[in-house]
Amino acid sequence: MSKRVAVVLAGCGVYDGSEIHEASAVLVHLSRGGASVNMFAPNIDQMHVINHLKGEPSQETRNVLVESARLARGNIQDLSKLSVKDHDAIIFPGGFGAAKNLCTWAVQGKDCSVNEEVQTVLRAFQTEGKPIGLCCISPVIAAKVLPGCEVTVGTENNEKYPNTTDTAAAINQLGCKHVSKSVSESHVDEKNKLVTTCAFMCDAPIHEVFDGIGSMVKDVLKLA
Amino acid sequence: MSKRVAVVLAGCGVYDGSEIHEASAVLVHLSRGGASVNMFAPNIDQMHVINHLKGEPSQETRNVLVESARLARGNIQDLSKLSVKDHDAIIFPGGFGAAKNLCTWAVQGKDCSVNEEVQTVLRAFQTEGKPIGLCCISPVIAAKVLPGCEVTVGTENNEKYPNTTDTAAAINQLGCKHVSKSVSESHVDEKNKLVTTCAFMCDAPIHEVFDGIGSMVKDVLKLA
Repeated sequence: MSKRVAVVLAGCGVYDGSEIHEASAVLVHLSRGGASVNMFAPNIDQMHVINHLKGEPSQETRNVLVESARLARGNIQDLSKLSVKDHDAIIFPGGFGAAKNLCTWAVQGKDCSVNEEVQTVLRAFQTEGKPIGLCCISPVIAAKVLPGCEVTVGTENNEKYPNTTDTAAAINQLGCKHVSKSVSESHVDEKNKLVTTCAFMCDAPIHEVFDGIGSMVKDVLKLA
Repeated sequence: MSKRVAVVLAGCGVYDGSEIHEASAVLVHLSRGGASVNMFAPNIDQMHVINHLKGEPSQETRNVLVESARLARGNIQDLSKLSVKDHDAIIFPGGFGAAKNLCTWAVQGKDCSVNEEVQTVLRAFQTEGKPIGLCCISPVIAAKVLPGCEVTVGTENNEKYPNTTDTAAAINQLGCKHVSKSVSESHVDEKNKLVTTCAFMCDAPIHEVFDGIGSMVKDVLKLA
């Protein structure tokens, strides 16, 4: 029987939503792995709408579920409808949307709050022993919700990636453990069945990001 | 030296812009093929803004270049700035945006008009003998602009895909030749250096669409 995987989106666009290429890579690798996929997003307004051409906030209001539907080609449900028993695993792509709409890490760092529906599903999948995959900045949500977990957001102490070093430090301050990994690798926290990879936290060519996400998805399906 | 490829986007979302997963697949395969990529989109309003959750038009106005910048992670230019001499090939992903914003095929079929900048670059690449790749519904733009060319939009006379059969008939009525191909194949019109693949015109799993686009991108790079 095919593995049933929930994918949680956070909008559509790297600066205010889900990172598009990460989300697409997750879907391609899940499809190749024979998984059946259901997509979900919270039915809330985005924290920001960013004009991606100018890199500046615009005055518009957009809804996370409605914009996520672009990535899902319309086939998406309200996150409040996600039933843990109907899924074998859950995956969160990255992008600023994960740090703005699923939690408030983008503006509050380790003192952020996490969307209640996101907290609920993350704890439920962990309690049920069902694997959780996250990439890019999304692992900070696990670090906030699942005490003591191990995650990667890339390579620490590389002067090319000061943001990764800062994020790793904040993860450690939360009592979790950051593990340095390259873009092609995923890290598996066996105890929590948590699989993470850095994706676009690293400034790598898009096909390397694609392959790293492939490694994460494979590990998730193996644990499911 | 790496091949320099222009990718022309038409917004961000299957129903009113570029099909997201097709555009992402084009970029992944170009990256793996060692190409250097510049992205472009026309600086015009979208024909429609579609709420992808409801599948209905909304009252918003969105700009094709600004929305395409979501797919390009901000790194995109106005199509009017595209210099043919600085590129070895050009690729058009599909999605309704190609048939609404780059031409008006979605509402006028074979009697459509094609955006003038799109016409100009297509003719210039063909005149220079530089390859042109298109997928999904985008091949209709070539059928309209390049008389007598050969393209595929999928498999004709398959009752699962009435839209492909109708589109193929319209392409033939324009004096071009439609060639039936499966989702995994691309068709090469050697004379016009035109490479096409059906992508999401076919209701295939996303990893098969990804691989078919890989075939198209490989053929484009081979011809470049």
